[in-house]
Amino acid sequence: MTRDMNVAIIGTKFMGKAHSHAWKSAPNFFDVPIRPVLKVACGTDESSLKAFAERWGWQEISTNWQDVIAREDIDIVDISVPQYLHHDIAVAAAKAGKHIFCEKPMAMNLTQAQAMLKAAQDAGVVHYINHNYRRVPAVMLAKQLIDEGKIGRIFHWRGCYLQSWITDPNFPLTWHLRKETAGSGPHGDLNSHSIDLARFLVGDIKSVVGMTTNFIKERSLPGAGAATFSAGSGGATEKGEVTVEDAAFMVVEFENGALGSFEATRFAPGRKNYNYFEIYGSKGSLIFDLERMNELQYFSEADPNYAQGFRTILATESVHSYVANWWPPGHIIGYEHEFTHAVVDFLKAVDSGGVIRPNFEDGVAETRVLEAGLKAAASGQRVMVAEL
Amino acid sequence: MTRDMNVAIIGTKFMGKAHSHAWKSAPNFFDVPIRPVLKVACGTDESSLKAFAERWGWQEISTNWQDVIAREDIDIVDISVPQYLHHDIAVAAAKAGKHIFCEKPMAMNLTQAQAMLKAAQDAGVVHYINHNYRRVPAVMLAKQLIDEGKIGRIFHWRGCYLQSWITDPNFPLTWHLRKETAGSGPHGDLNSHSIDLARFLVGDIKSVVGMTTNFIKERSLPGAGAATFSAGSGGATEKGEVTVEDAAFMVVEFENGALGSFEATRFAPGRKNYNYFEIYGSKGSLIFDLERMNELQYFSEADPNYAQGFRTILATESVHSYVANWWPPGHIIGYEHEFTHAVVDFLKAVDSGGVIRPNFEDGVAETRVLEAGLKAAASGQRVMVAEL
Amino acid sequence: MTRDMNVAIIGTKFMGKAHSHAWKSAPNFFDVPIRPVLKVACGTDESSLKAFAERWGWQEISTNWQDVIAREDIDIVDISVPQYLHHDIAVAAAKAGKHIFCEKPMAMNLTQAQAMLKAAQDAGVVHYINHNYRRVPAVMLAKQLIDEGKIGRIFHWRGCYLQSWITDPNFPLTWHLRKETAGSGPHGDLNSHSIDLARFLVGDIKSVVGMTTNFIKERSLPGAGAATFSAGSGGATEKGEVTVEDAAFMVVEFENGALGSFEATRFAPGRKNYNYFEIYGSKGSLIFDLERMNELQYFSEADPNYAQGFRTILATESVHSYVANWWPPGHIIGYEHEFTHAVVDFLKAVDSGGVIRPNFEDGVAETRVLEAGLKAAASGQRVMVAEL
Amino acid sequence: MTRDMNVAIIGTKFMGKAHSHAWKSAPNFFDVPIRPVLKVACGTDESSLKAFAERWGWQEISTNWQDVIAREDIDIVDISVPQYLHHDIAVAAAKAGKHIFCEKPMAMNLTQAQAMLKAAQDAGVVHYINHNYRRVPAVMLAKQLIDEGKIGRIFHWRGCYLQSWITDPNFPLTWHLRKETAGSGPHGDLNSHSIDLARFLVGDIKSVVGMTTNFIKERSLPGAGAATFSAGSGGATEKGEVTVEDAAFMVVEFENGALGSFEATRFAPGRKNYNYFEIYGSKGSLIFDLERMNELQYFSEADPNYAQGFRTILATESVHSYVANWWPPGHIIGYEHEFTHAVVDFLKAVDSGGVIRPNFEDGVAETRVLEAGLKAAASGQRVMVAEL
Repeated sequence: MTRDMNVAIIGTKFMGKAHSHAWKSAPNFFDVPIRPVLKVACGTDESSLKAFAERWGWQEISTNWQDVIAREDIDIVDISVPQYLHHDIAVAAAKAGKHIFCEKPMAMNLTQAQAMLKAAQDAGVVHYINHNYRRVPAVMLAKQLIDEGKIGRIFHWRGCYLQSWITDPNFPLTWHLRKETAGSGPHGDLNSHSIDLARFLVGDIKSVVGMTTNFIKERSLPGAGAATFSAGSGGATEKGEVTVEDAAFMVVEFENGALGSFEATRFAPGRKNYNYFEIYGSKGSLIFDLERMNELQYFSEADPNYAQGFRTILATESVHSYVANWWPPGHIIGYEHEFTHAVVDFLKAVDSGGVIRPNFEDGVAETRVLEAGLKAAASGQRVMVAEL
Repeated sequence: MTRDMNVAIIGTKFMGKAHSHAWKSAPNFFDVPIRPVLKVACGTDESSLKAFAERWGWQEISTNWQDVIAREDIDIVDISVPQYLHHDIAVAAAKAGKHIFCEKPMAMNLTQAQAMLKAAQDAGVVHYINHNYRRVPAVMLAKQLIDEGKIGRIFHWRGCYLQSWITDPNFPLTWHLRKETAGSGPHGDLNSHSIDLARFLVGDIKSVVGMTTNFIKERSLPGAGAATFSAGSGGATEKGEVTVEDAAFMVVEFENGALGSFEATRFAPGRKNYNYFEIYGSKGSLIFDLERMNELQYFSEADPNYAQGFRTILATESVHSYVANWWPPGHIIGYEHEFTHAVVDFLKAVDSGGVIRPNFEDGVAETRVLEAGLKAAASGQRVMVAEL
Repeated sequence: MTRDMNVAIIGTKFMGKAHSHAWKSAPNFFDVPIRPVLKVACGTDESSLKAFAERWGWQEISTNWQDVIAREDIDIVDISVPQYLHHDIAVAAAKAGKHIFCEKPMAMNLTQAQAMLKAAQDAGVVHYINHNYRRVPAVMLAKQLIDEGKIGRIFHWRGCYLQSWITDPNFPLTWHLRKETAGSGPHGDLNSHSIDLARFLVGDIKSVVGMTTNFIKERSLPGAGAATFSAGSGGATEKGEVTVEDAAFMVVEFENGALGSFEATRFAPGRKNYNYFEIYGSKGSLIFDLERMNELQYFSEADPNYAQGFRTILATESVHSYVANWWPPGHIIGYEHEFTHAVVDFLKAVDSGGVIRPNFEDGVAETRVLEAGLKAAASGQRVMVAEL
Repeated sequence: MTRDMNVAIIGTKFMGKAHSHAWKSAPNFFDVPIRPVLKVACGTDESSLKAFAERWGWQEISTNWQDVIAREDIDIVDISVPQYLHHDIAVAAAKAGKHIFCEKPMAMNLTQAQAMLKAAQDAGVVHYINHNYRRVPAVMLAKQLIDEGKIGRIFHWRGCYLQSWITDPNFPLTWHLRKETAGSGPHGDLNSHSIDLARFLVGDIKSVVGMTTNFIKERSLPGAGAATFSAGSGGATEKGEVTVEDAAFMVVEFENGALGSFEATRFAPGRKNYNYFEIYGSKGSLIFDLERMNELQYFSEADPNYAQGFRTILATESVHSYVANWWPPGHIIGYEHEFTHAVVDFLKAVDSGGVIRPNFEDGVAETRVLEAGLKAAASGQRVMVAEL
C-alpha cells in the first residue's frame, strides 16, 4: 500500500523548481511506495515564494526553515538552497529525525560534510546528495558494463565539466563567484559532479596534482536579485573581487592504479552544460556527454578486429534503467528526468529503511577529493587524499 | 485571470499517457490563460481505465465516449485513440461545440478528414492535429531561419522517418498492421509527420511518385491485449495477412519548385524513432534528427569561405522557443515536452478564439498528399496532389 | 618477375592528374606484377600537355589519340577525358588490342555502352570502368560484412550524392552542363557512382520511378578554358541554356525486393563531395560517407539488446583491404588512394588474364538503370529496367 | 629555375617510407624551387635496404651513415631513425654543412637538443623537426583563425594523444619501450606532438604538474626484427622491464595565462592515432581530431545568439593551405600528405636561405617542456619550465 509522507522544500530557485517537478512527477510515471505530499515550501521572499508554491502545488509556505524543520508532520526535508546553508539545515533536519534530500555540492568544506554525515548517521535518517547524473540511463548503462567486466581493468578516466556562462566580463559578481557563499568556483560546482561519477564508475582517488586560475579578477556587484544565469543589467558600477577560481584542472591517481584527469571551467565557449567523461579499460572504452545524455558510446575489444569501433548506444530501450516507465525506444528524455529517478529511489529507501547512493558518506569522500585538489593547486604539490 | 476548463480524454494508452502529462505539466512550467481540469478519462477496459485515471488525476472515468461528449461541463475533447476512431469522435465533439485536440494521423482517408474539418469549421471550435514535432525548439528554429531568409530559395527536402520495431517476423499482427484500424502503415503513421514538417518548413506539395512494399506478408494474430510495442508471446499459431505497407518511399515536387523525397519504414535496424530531415537552399542548409532533438545543424553560405561548415546548434538557449520556461542552456528536454508546448498553444488559442497550427485544414492538406502517395505507388504514375 | 607495360593516357585535367598519380604510386606502395611505364600523354593543348607530362613523368606527348592507339608499343589505354569521347576511344583501343582503364560514366547512352562492351569482349582485352569508390577500404568492409551475412536480408538502400558547386547562378555553362558533352547532369555524373555502389552492395535494380528538375535554366557561356570547378570570371554576357538536369531523385525496387532511393544534386550547400549511403538489413545496417571515407558505421542486431548502436569503424587496420600497404592504424588515407588500388587490381587482371570489376559489363548494367531513371522522370511512369 | 639537390635518407622503416614518398610526391603536386634527387638511402640491413631503395627510387645505398654525411654531393640529410640516434647524426650533418630534415622527437634529452641546435646554428644550415601535424590544412586553419583574432584571448588548451597498440600484455618489449632507445614512452612520442601544436597555436608553457604511470611493468623480449606495430610471435619466454612510462598526463600554465592539459597514452582502446585538441577562447573555440584530419570544428561567439554552435569545417577548399595543389572540395587528403607539405616548405627554405618552423629552436623549447613534465611527475611538484 502506498502511504503519504510530507515533504518540506527549502529553496525556490533553479533547484527548487527541478525538485518540485520531481516530487510531483515521480508517482505519475513510477510506482512508488510512498506518495510525497508537497507540504511546505520555504524561502526568503514572501511574494515570490507564494507564486512558487501556487505554481507547483506546495500547500503551505514559510520564511523560517527552522520552524518548518521543527514541525512534527514533516517527514522529508529537501535542501535546495546554495551550499553555504547546507550544513546548518542538514544537521538540524537530522536532529529532528527528518530524511534528507540534499543538493550538491554537499558543504563548504570537509569539516562541515563530516558533521552532516555524523548527524545523519546518529539520527538514523535516510540521507542523499543529489548528484543527479548518476541516474541518467546512459550513465547507469556505463556502470552496468563496467560491473559486468566489459571494460576490464580501467586504465584512464577523463572527466570534463565545461560551461561558458561567465566568459562575459560584464557578468556580475553573483553568489556563485564569492567564496563565502559558494566555497569554490567550478571546482566545487562542477568537479564535484565529475568526482562523484568517477567514484561511481572507476573508484576512489588516491592522490592529486592540479592547478586553478582566474581569468577575470573583479566584477560588478549585482543589482538586487540578479543572481541568475543571465548577465545582470549594466547599471552597477561598483566592483568586487572574484574570490573563487574560474577553472580547476587536476591529474589524479586512483586507488586501483588508473590515471585520470579532471577539467572544470566556466570559460569554455560553445559548452553549455558539457559534463563529459571518457573511460578506457583493457577490454573496452566508454564516452558520455551530458548534452547528448541519452547516448553512451562504447568500444569493445571483443568485437571482431575488422569491425571494432565506438558504438553510439541510444539508451532508450526498455531494458535500460528507468526507461520502461517513460516512453518507447528512441523517444528521448531530458534533464529533469534524473531528479524524478532520484526521488523514486529516495522514496524506496525511506520506505524500506535502506540506503540510497550517493549519500552523505559519498559526499564526505568527494569533499575530501575536492579539498585535496585545492590544496594541491595552492601548494604546487601532489596531495594524498587520505592525508586530509 | 486564469480560468478553468474541463478536459475529457478518450484513449489511455501511449498517447493517453503523453497527453495526460501535458495537460498536467503545462501550468507548472508555463503561464497559461486557462487552467485545464482533468475531468474525465474514457476507455474501454474499466480496470485499466481506473488505474490510469488515478495515476494521472483524472477525476472521473467513463467507458462511453458519446456520453462524455454530450456532457455540458466538458469544454475540450482530447482524442488519443487510434485513427480509425478519429472521424466519429471529432465530428461528434465538434457538433457538441467542444474544442478538439486530436492525435495524428488525422483520419483514415481524405473523405473523413474533410468531414472532420467541415464539422469543426461549422461549429467554430478550435481544432488541432497533434503533429507535436513542429514544437520541438530546434524545429521552431529551423522555421525561424527559413522565415528570416537565411536558407534562401529552397532546392531540396528529404524527410526520413525510420523505425525498426517490426523487423522481427514474430512481432504479431497488431492493429497497426491492419488496414481497417490503421488505414496504412508507416506511410500514414510516419510520413504523415514528415509531410507536416515539409509543409511547415518548405511548402505545399504539387506532385508525387513513389513505391511501397511489404517484407513480411503475414504474421501471428496477437494474444489479447498484445497490441504493444513489444513482441507478443509465442503461443499464437494462427496467422493473418499484413494489410498495410511495411515501407513507403516517395519523390515529390513542391509548389515552389523544390525537389524532395520521403522515406518511411519500420524496417531500419538501428533506427528507433529516427525522424530526420535535410533542407538545402540557396543560402544555407538545415539538418534535424529527432533522436538528437535538442540540436539543429545549420550551414550558412554567409560564413567566410574558409570557415563554412554545418554548425550544431544546441537549441537550449532562452532565446529558443519555449526553452526559457524549462531549464538553463545545455540542459536538454525530451520527447514529452512537445506535448506540453502544444497544450500551452492550444489553451492560448481557445482563450483568444484564435487558431492553432497544424489544425484540421493542415490535416486535410496532409491527408491529400498521403493519398496521392498511395495512389502513385499503386498506379506507378506521377500523381498531381490537387487532382485528388 | 615484374615486367614493364606501356601506358598511354588520354586526358590531362582532373582525372589525368589523379590517374597519373595512381600509375606512379602503385609500384611504390604495392607489389605489382607489372610495372607501368608512363609512355605517352595525349591532350589537345600542346603547351599545357607538355607541362603535364613533365610534372608526372610521361615520356612522350601527342595531340592525336588515334596515332597513339595505333602504336604497337602501347599496352594499356587510360581514358581520362569527358564521357562524350569514351565510346570512340574505347572502341578503337579495343580493336587495337589495348587493355582499357576508362573513367566513368561509361558513355553517353546505353547504345554506346553496349558497343564498347562488345568491342572489348571481341578483342579479349581487360576492361575497367573507374568507379573508384568501390575500392575505399570502408566500402570493401561493407561488402565483406554483407557477404558474410552480417547484414542479413537487405530491406533498404539510400544512395545520396550531393554537391554544391553550381548553386552560384554566375557559374558558367561548362561542358558538364550541356547534354552534348555530358549526356546528363548529376544523374550521369553522381547517380552513376551510387548505382554502381548499390549494384555492388545490394544487387540489381528492377524498376524505377523518379523526377529531375532544373533550378537555373540558363547560364553565361564560359570564357576559353573556363570549364573548371571554380566559377568563371564575370566578363561573359552571352547566355546559353542548361541542357542537363540540376538534380535527379529516384525510388527503386531491387531484384531482391529491397526498396531504395537515390538522390543526386549539385544544389546542396554544405555538401562538397558527399557520396553517402545507408543500407538496412534484417541483421544489421551500414552507413558510409565519402567525406569521412575512412569510416564505416555498422549496426548489428547481434549485439546484446542493451548495448546496440551504430559503431564507427575506422577502417585503417591492417586487416582492412589495401590498408597494410599504407600506414599504421589510425593514419587515414585520402581521395587519390582508391585510384592506386584500382591500378593495382587492373595490373593484376592484365597479368593474370583475369577480370576486374566494375568492368564494361557493369557499366552497361549501370547505364541501363541511368536511362531507366531519365525515362521514368520524363514519362512520370514506373520503368522496368529490363525493358530498356 | 628549378635546380637539383641530392638527398640522403637515414632510416628505412615507417618514417623512411613516409619521407621517401614525400620527397617523390612534392614536385608532382607542388611547384618547388629545388628538385630533390633521391641519392642515397642508409640502413643497417643490406638486403632490406636494397629492396627499400629499389621500391622508392633511391639511387644508391649505404650501411654507413658517417660516410654518406661526408660525401660532398649530398645537400640534404633526412634523419628518419629512432631518437637515440638523432643527436650524433644531426651534429655530424650540421658540421658537414648539410641541411637537416629530422624526425621527432628531437633528442633523448635537453642537453642533446641544445647541442643539435648549436651545431646547426653554427653551420648556418636549414634545420627542421618534423612535427608534421602543423601542416594539416585544418590545423593551419586553426592557426589562421587564432591569428585573425577569431578566438580571442585563449583560456584553455587540451591536447590528447591517445593510442592503444600496447594494451595487449603480449606485445613485446620493442625499442619504443626501453629508455635507452626511446628516452621516454608516449610522453616523448606523443606529448611531443601535442606540445608542438600547443606552442604553435597557444604559446609557450610556463609551468607544469603531472603524473606518469605504468600498467604493464615487464614484457617478453622481442624476436629479431620484431620492433613493429604488430605484436610479436609467442615464442619468446624471456622477459625484460619496461623502462618508459605507459601514460603521461600534465596540467600546465601557459605564459599568456591559459590553463591547459595534456594526456598521452598507449592504453586507450578505440583510439588508434587520436591526436586531438580543444582550444577555448574569449571569442570562440576550436576542436581538432587527427582521425578526422580534414575537419576543424569552430565555435564563434560572433554568430547570432540563437544560431551558435560548433561548425564542422571540411578544410578541403582551395582557400585552405596546400589544398589547391591536391583535389577539388570534399576530396579528402590523408596522413602522408603532411610530409609532402613539409618537404615543399623545407625546399623553399633551403632555396631562399630562410627559416622553416618547427625547427631546432622549437625542438629545444619543446624538449624543455617534456623534461619539465617528467620532473614534475617524478617529484610531485610544480616545475617552472624556464628553470630547466
